[in-house]
Amino acid sequence: MPHRPSGFVDDKRLWDRLMMLAQFGAREDGGVDRPALSPTESDARAQLVAWGRALGLHPFSDAMANLFLRLEGRRPELPPVLIGSHIDSQPTGGKFDGAFGVLAGLEAVEAIIASGQRPDRSIEVVAWTNEEGSRFAPGMAGSEAFTGAKPLEILHAAKDAAGCSAGAAVAEVLAKDVDVPQRAFGWAPAAFVEPHIEQGPILEKRNITIGVVTGIQGTRRYRVRVSGEAAHAGTTLRRDRRDALMAAVRIIHAIDRVAREPDDVMLTVGLFEVKPNAPSVIPEEVYFSIDLRHTDDAVVDRIDAEIRRLVEAEKGPCAVELRQIAHAPSLTFSDEVRSLVARAADDLSLPSMDIYSAAGHDARQLHYVCPTGMIFVPCRGGISHNPAEWAEPAHVAAGARVLADVAWALAARGD
Amino acid sequence: MPHRPSGFVDDKRLWDRLMMLAQFGAREDGGVDRPALSPTESDARAQLVAWGRALGLHPFSDAMANLFLRLEGRRPELPPVLIGSHIDSQPTGGKFDGAFGVLAGLEAVEAIIASGQRPDRSIEVVAWTNEEGSRFAPGMAGSEAFTGAKPLEILHAAKDAAGCSAGAAVAEVLAKDVDVPQRAFGWAPAAFVEPHIEQGPILEKRNITIGVVTGIQGTRRYRVRVSGEAAHAGTTLRRDRRDALMAAVRIIHAIDRVAREPDDVMLTVGLFEVKPNAPSVIPEEVYFSIDLRHTDDAVVDRIDAEIRRLVEAEKGPCAVELRQIAHAPSLTFSDEVRSLVARAADDLSLPSMDIYSAAGHDARQLHYVCPTGMIFVPCRGGISHNPAEWAEPAHVAAGARVLADVAWALAARGD
Repeated sequence: MPHRPSGFVDDKRLWDRLMMLAQFGAREDGGVDRPALSPTESDARAQLVAWGRALGLHPFSDAMANLFLRLEGRRPELPPVLIGSHIDSQPTGGKFDGAFGVLAGLEAVEAIIASGQRPDRSIEVVAWTNEEGSRFAPGMAGSEAFTGAKPLEILHAAKDAAGCSAGAAVAEVLAKDVDVPQRAFGWAPAAFVEPHIEQGPILEKRNITIGVVTGIQGTRRYRVRVSGEAAHAGTTLRRDRRDALMAAVRIIHAIDRVAREPDDVMLTVGLFEVKPNAPSVIPEEVYFSIDLRHTDDAVVDRIDAEIRRLVEAEKGPCAVELRQIAHAPSLTFSDEVRSLVARAADDLSLPSMDIYSAAGHDARQLHYVCPTGMIFVPCRGGISHNPAEWAEPAHVAAGARVLADVAWALAARGD
Repeated sequence: MPHRPSGFVDDKRLWDRLMMLAQFGAREDGGVDRPALSPTESDARAQLVAWGRALGLHPFSDAMANLFLRLEGRRPELPPVLIGSHIDSQPTGGKFDGAFGVLAGLEAVEAIIASGQRPDRSIEVVAWTNEEGSRFAPGMAGSEAFTGAKPLEILHAAKDAAGCSAGAAVAEVLAKDVDVPQRAFGWAPAAFVEPHIEQGPILEKRNITIGVVTGIQGTRRYRVRVSGEAAHAGTTLRRDRRDALMAAVRIIHAIDRVAREPDDVMLTVGLFEVKPNAPSVIPEEVYFSIDLRHTDDAVVDRIDAEIRRLVEAEKGPCAVELRQIAHAPSLTFSDEVRSLVARAADDLSLPSMDIYSAAGHDARQLHYVCPTGMIFVPCRGGISHNPAEWAEPAHVAAGARVLADVAWALAARGD
């Protein structure tokens, strides 16, 4: 029988740490507001470092302020196994998105230490910087810097609403680190495993504790600017109008129709802004977002082509500018990591199922450079990015148990 | 030959005052942003009072901060003739909407004084408070208070986007008045004449200088609140969504279609606000305006019925609340005032024509309590509620000339 550190996971310790971390940026409504690279997040980071040092872990950082807490393996010259997620949140975020993955990582390492055996490879708990992208857009900046997906200069140049650059914010966070050595980018981990709440309703509805994440769906994000002409609502005949809002409504209505097939296409217009936004003035400009996701790239590409056609077909007398601001194809996670997650759940008698991630995660970036997988646990009502976000303590602990056994197995991998 | 003060209208003086008033709330793009009851409007009001005092006019105000500049007639015991308009603007307004009417009134009075004869009745230049309704909705609050169309408490209770009540804003404006006595409501003027730019393209296209306004088209205004549920844009299937924005888009799209016949129906959605308005969050609430106008009440009523049907038919899984905030049937102005305007234009050899007002004006409220009419002058391209709003100096002066002669004639009316 293989070594199973999962038996040393302490449910209460893990839950208590989750609730303590949620105090950093706690909202009155029970949610969490912990912007990336903020003083609030910096304080939470210091707490993580303190917990790690208490276990004998060695903290490291890098030029994007990613945080690594290293359990030295018996063969420290080998690339380590990374486990974790992120600790930044949306402005109206919850206690679990990101934080659960990092603290499940810490709990898994503590369980491994408590089990009395030392892993072959080092295991590092990681908290990636700025996954959410709500203060500095876009998100996943830390994992993009680490994997080289984007140049550091570009990631540092991103500015928040107050005009502060990500680079300046990184420098502030790093300046508060005490005895946290910085490492260079440019090395590939042995593997990466990211535990996360599902952020969807499937596991809860089917009463399944562990989601073996098969991949992440493809995404395209757009911004559309429709430009017309402001005019008096009471005196300008329809044929003389260049009504930006009616053009935007026609465009969105048409796009919504083509995105109805297949029925699991995710199409969302979440942002919609009107100028001058006065009841008796025909709008001169509308600016809106489109968020398109599906597991099948061919579906995403087909709807992308339709979107490009429809903004022109439905713009009427207005001008329209469509800008694609993000494009991430769908991806499939490592067979090896998926098998390990499924087997660990079986060994622990936890019901599991294959599941696609509908949301993006840092695991997307890591999967380009090393075997990568994710472990989902259910969250209540599928609600996320919301103060009402909730995961059951038993599910949180189950996720950490699976992670502990998977991390142990991955640390035993050969070169 | 009757006395004709129009000969004493000074084109340059009138134009200079128009350009000076446009400095209060001047936008960089040449437009005007002068919200009702704002410090900016209060400063413009003080300028009006100063101009009036220099002519020997007596300023008065009331509990809605309407401003009257009174030229005392030979029979001050008789109800006065009111001439004027308003000085508040839309956020992206122009130099002429409202301001032209007030300054044409001031010029007409100055011309009457310069003509050396004193009118029988007093003549008062009036600036009605909050015609536009863009800071405090709905508009025409000053003329509604004056005519008793709405109780003062209700008008004072209206709040702006920052939560400030109209009553508080009125108090601030009145507090800045120096030696401006307040008068009670509840009296009927002898007549009211409102000069205004057409805000439509008809006069310009036909090369006509003076529009003899026959009436105002019927109007209904609504606010619609669509309530759904916020959820993650990447993980929530369409069938599980309660997407307030997509419901609003369906509703507006359907209403836009039914309002295409006849082709002179005015239907506008000028205000559209989304919560939480984030690209990756399915909107939980949309709040939008509908502005419906037509000269034929039967058409307005038919589309009203369709709007009420369609908000229910297209709401999908969302809840919808439709509130009609204004309903004004179409109206016909006083035969006497229309005849006087047409005759004054003829006497001045100015081409004139009958024309319907597509926009609402304070003259709507006044026509319920006294003989009322309007004088339109052309504006370039029919553009209004826009910084590009423009009227030719010659047309502005022509409007003031017609007003001077009409006001003189009305001031000679018997009891």
